[in-house]
Amino acid sequence: MSIIFGINVNKLNMKTGSIKKSLMALFLTVSAFSVFAQESVSLPETVIADQQYNKAIHIMAMLLLGFGFLMVFVRKYGRSALTATFLLVSMSLPLYFAGRAIGFSEERSSEIETLLFSEFAAASLLIAAGAVLGRLKMPQYLLLAILFVPFYMFNEWIVLGGGLGLIQAGTVVDTGGSIVIHAFGAIFGLGVALTMTTKQEFEKTIEADSTSDRYSMLGSMVLWIFWPSFCAAIVPPEQVSHTVINVILALCGSTIATYIFSVALRKKISIADIANASLAGGVAIGSSCADATYSMAIIIGILAGALSTFGFAVIQSHQQRLMKIIDTCGVTNLHGLPGLLGGFAVLPIVKGLNIGGQMSGIGLTVLIALIAGIITGKILPLLGRRKEAYEDSEEFLDAE
Amino acid sequence: MSIIFGINVNKLNMKTGSIKKSLMALFLTVSAFSVFAQESVSLPETVIADQQYNKAIHIMAMLLLGFGFLMVFVRKYGRSALTATFLLVSMSLPLYFAGRAIGFSEERSSEIETLLFSEFAAASLLIAAGAVLGRLKMPQYLLLAILFVPFYMFNEWIVLGGGLGLIQAGTVVDTGGSIVIHAFGAIFGLGVALTMTTKQEFEKTIEADSTSDRYSMLGSMVLWIFWPSFCAAIVPPEQVSHTVINVILALCGSTIATYIFSVALRKKISIADIANASLAGGVAIGSSCADATYSMAIIIGILAGALSTFGFAVIQSHQQRLMKIIDTCGVTNLHGLPGLLGGFAVLPIVKGLNIGGQMSGIGLTVLIALIAGIITGKILPLLGRRKEAYEDSEEFLDAE
Amino acid sequence: MSIIFGINVNKLNMKTGSIKKSLMALFLTVSAFSVFAQESVSLPETVIADQQYNKAIHIMAMLLLGFGFLMVFVRKYGRSALTATFLLVSMSLPLYFAGRAIGFSEERSSEIETLLFSEFAAASLLIAAGAVLGRLKMPQYLLLAILFVPFYMFNEWIVLGGGLGLIQAGTVVDTGGSIVIHAFGAIFGLGVALTMTTKQEFEKTIEADSTSDRYSMLGSMVLWIFWPSFCAAIVPPEQVSHTVINVILALCGSTIATYIFSVALRKKISIADIANASLAGGVAIGSSCADATYSMAIIIGILAGALSTFGFAVIQSHQQRLMKIIDTCGVTNLHGLPGLLGGFAVLPIVKGLNIGGQMSGIGLTVLIALIAGIITGKILPLLGRRKEAYEDSEEFLDAE
Repeated sequence: MSIIFGINVNKLNMKTGSIKKSLMALFLTVSAFSVFAQESVSLPETVIADQQYNKAIHIMAMLLLGFGFLMVFVRKYGRSALTATFLLVSMSLPLYFAGRAIGFSEERSSEIETLLFSEFAAASLLIAAGAVLGRLKMPQYLLLAILFVPFYMFNEWIVLGGGLGLIQAGTVVDTGGSIVIHAFGAIFGLGVALTMTTKQEFEKTIEADSTSDRYSMLGSMVLWIFWPSFCAAIVPPEQVSHTVINVILALCGSTIATYIFSVALRKKISIADIANASLAGGVAIGSSCADATYSMAIIIGILAGALSTFGFAVIQSHQQRLMKIIDTCGVTNLHGLPGLLGGFAVLPIVKGLNIGGQMSGIGLTVLIALIAGIITGKILPLLGRRKEAYEDSEEFLDAE
Repeated sequence: MSIIFGINVNKLNMKTGSIKKSLMALFLTVSAFSVFAQESVSLPETVIADQQYNKAIHIMAMLLLGFGFLMVFVRKYGRSALTATFLLVSMSLPLYFAGRAIGFSEERSSEIETLLFSEFAAASLLIAAGAVLGRLKMPQYLLLAILFVPFYMFNEWIVLGGGLGLIQAGTVVDTGGSIVIHAFGAIFGLGVALTMTTKQEFEKTIEADSTSDRYSMLGSMVLWIFWPSFCAAIVPPEQVSHTVINVILALCGSTIATYIFSVALRKKISIADIANASLAGGVAIGSSCADATYSMAIIIGILAGALSTFGFAVIQSHQQRLMKIIDTCGVTNLHGLPGLLGGFAVLPIVKGLNIGGQMSGIGLTVLIALIAGIITGKILPLLGRRKEAYEDSEEFLDAE
Repeated sequence: MSIIFGINVNKLNMKTGSIKKSLMALFLTVSAFSVFAQESVSLPETVIADQQYNKAIHIMAMLLLGFGFLMVFVRKYGRSALTATFLLVSMSLPLYFAGRAIGFSEERSSEIETLLFSEFAAASLLIAAGAVLGRLKMPQYLLLAILFVPFYMFNEWIVLGGGLGLIQAGTVVDTGGSIVIHAFGAIFGLGVALTMTTKQEFEKTIEADSTSDRYSMLGSMVLWIFWPSFCAAIVPPEQVSHTVINVILALCGSTIATYIFSVALRKKISIADIANASLAGGVAIGSSCADATYSMAIIIGILAGALSTFGFAVIQSHQQRLMKIIDTCGVTNLHGLPGLLGGFAVLPIVKGLNIGGQMSGIGLTVLIALIAGIITGKILPLLGRRKEAYEDSEEFLDAE
């Protein structure tokens, strides 16, 4: 588009005799516009806000419908999983706003941007909760949210905001949050699981409900559909188009790879692989979504889908035996490993990257998440602990 | 944002010798822009229309998926509830457009604004239908739509449009429709239930389907997710950001309050409370969503969630005994009481409010809705009446 | 809105003595703006892209949740249907991008427009797959996608892009794809079914799962909700409002007509009619969605709903007996006939239409789709063929 405003000179109603000067002035006006058209355009604030608002609503669909229904697979735990999702989101959003209000973060952002950042915190919290799903009762989910949000904001401040002067703000490339959202949440959750899981709990595995596969696929598809908005939420308008297509191509790559590797590793398809590992491309493209080419995006997606499927099919059982933890939703395989993959994928993709900074960002995130998770795992049992997995009937009326 | 259009003077291609005059003209151009940047910006019509269009689609998701699946809980009535939702929406939208076309409303609005207003009418109709769900057969839902829309438009005209000169247009503050959408629909539905419910019907209670809780939660979450678009649909662009965050905070408040009060009042959580009363914050923030502060929004949400949960847990059984009506979906508790709460909440929040006008608006809405509902309840049985609740098998092939 | 930019003259900071000249220049500036306000406005590229992006996400919801859950009705085939949907979408989007990259299409479009066109291809592919759903195993769905996309792009190029000089570009009116998306997909699918279905397969009918009606309605409602974005995706901004309302009114018309004709033709309502034929209005309004009046849109919707319901209730059994094919999802009745109806509906609606061109476009689409489908149906069995319908347990772990 070379001319933004088409000005029809003939229609101008000239009421002055000084045609020459008028035309000159007009010429300048038009010149100014032409220049404006060639330069990058600053859109009015309300237009930017509306573009981000639509993405904020898409992300809200991911938080509630996406994460909520993806977690419905635990046997006799559907009501609990959906209610926990509701409560975790309803706690974390206001907590994040409160944290900003008391100056927890120095970053200045518009109201909608703060909403987006608070949704990122909620997403990371839901990932963390996925690791211990079925082990907590409702009041413990509330406490988990209260403990998680400050730790999350602390890490965000250190890694992205230049907090404590450890990493200069703007150094770490993590546009769609592979590192600070996905990996942080997954490792935090592992930390909680590491401390909380007693020997007895470990022996009682969490059973899947074989009839809930359609609900899981519903949640998975909602996440897939709106993932481009998650990654492009705070990207400048002129980069949004390329970013969202990269995310979609990465998801296509991981979905195909998941099918192939699920069959290759297990002989038959596991619907849980399809519902989960298909999303790994979205996780892994996060850091480089604005910078990768289409081909790179597809390759990152394929690698992430393969890695995640391998995680679900092979690593998970070893992890449970060796680390003595049960990661209920397999967040290690869906968000942990692909998140780290995404953080490292930036290295060959982004030109002029501060490699040391990027590595420090990843390292500090892993460290902070693990310590914070372990601390949280020590505090949560103060509200009681259980030997067996929870079922809906314990906390809900008329449950099966 | 202080400068909207960055004009690079150096790049201006000056073809005239009269540099001084040119610069002057340029200066004026730039000045005009600076002023423009500081003043509120009038966006091009198509941009406004697109912003409203996205909200219209969000509201459509609320109408069909949201209300539809929230009402699926009635035992052996799932097909009927979903089909009725489809038919009620498909009747009311064109009826509202027809009403506008024949000059029923004097308000002038763009095509998309008319669509939004028609969706509000559909929402109010679905709320009204919720009160008598399971008591009507399909042709009666169609008749209900035909009777409801003119009454709804009449109330809209009286309360918001200055109709009959009773309340000056612009007096009543009801941005997101707590009064004219939610309370009107709920009270209309009660009016219908009041007249239609025979003694025999009253004795046959409508049973819930214990396995449908995930569908109800799906509907509830869809409503929760898109509620900000419902409230901000006709708000000026520069107020949208604040409005939507208020709505989200109010929903967070009511969701937490619902969990706490459900456990407090019933010992265990009722999933029906969670699916319904969690939304009360959205209902109650409606009137003041553009004006409240964040804190007020959360408080209104908490109060609405508590009130609504109290309604479901305590009031509903008394209501059924005393008023001899059955409100199938509990619209009194979800839309009626929180809607009125929202209408009154404007009083302490909005400065310079015409308090008499606001009270008149609420009072007239209650009156018109009740009378219209009672009239409708007299007409509907002309298409037949039943002693027992309907089941899918009566009207559907191959139903359970 | 008559004035787009409100310029407050009083606030202009006049630093020159030459007030007269300044005012003249200002006048011209304002004049230019007034003209600009009256003319059609060219919006910045990023604003257009964002408007299209939101529609692209809406269409993605249609592809995965919409088509996916609408196809879940086949007995013991839910996992397969959802996984196939995931794979078909994940194959076709990158294939379409690849096709564009190697210059398959001469059309130039922005990144988001290419995404939209690739989604249209995916929609058409899902329609085609619906005709043979339950007859293919997963690798065959992948092969189907690989074969379908080039044929689809070839037809798109011939009918819309002026390919081979058969029809001049811009001649065929098919804004929302009644012809090149819906009819093409349905007829392609019929072609595949025609060749693939052996006598033995024909005798084993595909059974519906009686408990999956809520999932089908979920898919149907998702398609209904987002259909306006499908039709308006590549419409110029100033025509979007009218287009989307036409689509909604057509859907209202077909939904009501479906209810009436389902009861009239079958005595009781078939929930499959409601879930499918209600959407026929969206299919049929596609070609003329930007040009029809509101009344025409409703009439097209009613006709399409009636035709589609008649197809499901009456034609389908004859079709199976006479043509010896089984159209699993009834795509003939939902996409085929209403698509052709939509293509012809343009004739009385669009003034100045090149009737010969429109007819050629329809004819060529039917021809290309049929031949391409038959060829594809010959190739697919190379990966194996089956006598009985597939069930989840064949390819999935732990399936019922």
